[in-house]
Amino acid sequence: MAASTAVLKDELDIVIPTIRNLDFLEMWRPFFQPYHLIIVQDGDPSKTIKVPEGFDYELYNRNDINKILGPKASCISFKDSACRCFGYMVSKKKYIFTIDDDCFVAKNPSGEDINALEQHIKNLLSPSSPFFFNTLYDPYREGADFVRGYPFSLREGVSTAVSHGLWLNIPDYDAPTQLVKPRERNTRYVDAVMTIPKGTLFPMCGMNLAFDRELIGPAMYFGLMGDGQPIGRYDDMWAGWCIKVICDHLGWGVKTGLPYIWHSKASNPFVNLQKEYKGIYWQEELIPFFQSVVLPKECTTVQKCYIEISKQVKAKLGKVDDYFIKLAGAMVTWIEAWDELNPLGTTGRLPNGTAK
Amino acid sequence: MAASTAVLKDELDIVIPTIRNLDFLEMWRPFFQPYHLIIVQDGDPSKTIKVPEGFDYELYNRNDINKILGPKASCISFKDSACRCFGYMVSKKKYIFTIDDDCFVAKNPSGEDINALEQHIKNLLSPSSPFFFNTLYDPYREGADFVRGYPFSLREGVSTAVSHGLWLNIPDYDAPTQLVKPRERNTRYVDAVMTIPKGTLFPMCGMNLAFDRELIGPAMYFGLMGDGQPIGRYDDMWAGWCIKVICDHLGWGVKTGLPYIWHSKASNPFVNLQKEYKGIYWQEELIPFFQSVVLPKECTTVQKCYIEISKQVKAKLGKVDDYFIKLAGAMVTWIEAWDELNPLGTTGRLPNGTAK
Repeated sequence: MAASTAVLKDELDIVIPTIRNLDFLEMWRPFFQPYHLIIVQDGDPSKTIKVPEGFDYELYNRNDINKILGPKASCISFKDSACRCFGYMVSKKKYIFTIDDDCFVAKNPSGEDINALEQHIKNLLSPSSPFFFNTLYDPYREGADFVRGYPFSLREGVSTAVSHGLWLNIPDYDAPTQLVKPRERNTRYVDAVMTIPKGTLFPMCGMNLAFDRELIGPAMYFGLMGDGQPIGRYDDMWAGWCIKVICDHLGWGVKTGLPYIWHSKASNPFVNLQKEYKGIYWQEELIPFFQSVVLPKECTTVQKCYIEISKQVKAKLGKVDDYFIKLAGAMVTWIEAWDELNPLGTTGRLPNGTAK
Repeated sequence: MAASTAVLKDELDIVIPTIRNLDFLEMWRPFFQPYHLIIVQDGDPSKTIKVPEGFDYELYNRNDINKILGPKASCISFKDSACRCFGYMVSKKKYIFTIDDDCFVAKNPSGEDINALEQHIKNLLSPSSPFFFNTLYDPYREGADFVRGYPFSLREGVSTAVSHGLWLNIPDYDAPTQLVKPRERNTRYVDAVMTIPKGTLFPMCGMNLAFDRELIGPAMYFGLMGDGQPIGRYDDMWAGWCIKVICDHLGWGVKTGLPYIWHSKASNPFVNLQKEYKGIYWQEELIPFFQSVVLPKECTTVQKCYIEISKQVKAKLGKVDDYFIKLAGAMVTWIEAWDELNPLGTTGRLPNGTAK
């Protein structure tokens, strides 16, 4: 694909958290090279990360984060890929695509390379249908439509805030499932994109994810994970619960399905178990909490919604563990840092419709 | 497939509404022959319907329905495939598969004939996951599982009440869409089965549908359509809204996706428009109505839920049109007829869990 034909090339940043040289970009070169990359270096800032020739990028290590955010840098995780959300904050573009450095180009059933970024852009630029289920999946896709019985008043759809892509080869399993099914590979290519219905939570994976930063960016906070924290591997889950509750409230859509990437390597299940074990029991309380969150009418911007959620986290989840009191504080710091780097007008635009 | 290997052959009836000779069964012979058929003859009872040799069947025409139900026969539609629900009522089996006589065997992407019935049975015999979304679709399917972030307490799943299959070739479009897109064909084989989340309504099509009659049978009423009624082509939609609200209340699952059938012929869009046009504007009120139905805790059986819905239909939708007052009455008659033909103990078993 020539740079001149790359869709939204001046309106989208690719955010990559990493601890190693980015050789994986070679395989993505035909698809990513026209775009700007934001690389967030995780861990030791003295280490040099090599980026293949020809890519346009900016790279931030921990020293840069500390310098830019000052004391507010405390809200950005260290030694955990949750640090990627710093990239969302410093971007000046409307759209973000984020991908892990162990994700490669997958092939569709015809054997062609899948341009994951192009599919995410399609998902984001076409409407969502969160208020009623369409049995033929994405009604806006070529060759599909709304089926009989779908209310006509809902067919205009709503803006799409998030596009969640999937993974061939190594599925995104938790440590217990990895341990029980060490040889399971995802070989099923499901040729579908769908809107996750309003009121339904889902497990959002950060491996292959795109979103409209102007719509939902301030809620894409990946929490406090990794070094000095009691939990890991719940960064994207946390963001997923928060963004879904806010999209439901503000009337925006979240899609899942295509595109697939090729996830090359399973992470160590023993290490994962250590990171996850508190999350595994906490999530039994977190999910009912997020299912019951009600945002008042006054919450008409993402920032207001997010601050309101942080208050409820402190009040209700603070009883589960002190960690959630710290996290609630970090959520507020995150919004303060976001607003500092993104003065009013550039993000947090009002929803097309009115809040519910 | 030899009769001896047919799954659930003594526990499942195939219900077919028709006005013509059932030549379409020839193509289904390898899959259907081991099963018992219940044929509900629509329209003129003096006409003879020919059934291919070798099938085990019972056939009911309008005279039979009148004889069996007496005055309660008024709840069964005439000159409309909605009459199929009479077959659900007279069946003595645990499971029902219903299919239209213009539906043929579809092929999967490898070119193999799809045994639609076998897939429906798989869907019904494996649990559903309505309380949280699984991004890799049916977690109970071979090669799949629950992804990271899916609460462990929900992985046992719940009983599956309904399996809704899809259609290749002619999609199930309403008249306006048929008119606008006369040449659209569904060629996309989406290799997925999924649970429709709790709280989400969907447009249920009766063309290719299976359900657990002991669980949800009394709610599978296809309403008053066709001869003497102001509306058609909303029989399955009506049933779909009712069963979904009840399944959500009683904690059961509804699946959609595989299996596909080959839908051979588009019905006449001009005739369809005449049948549908009232439904097209009524549904704008019906869907918010069903989205807001709340069933009280005392509704612990499908029958009780259904009678409660009929009361709310009368009270709230009666204002939309007198038709809904008549329909609410027919809903009560249907339950009376159901209970008469199905004395307590044979259906309406209590849910595994408790009502919400």
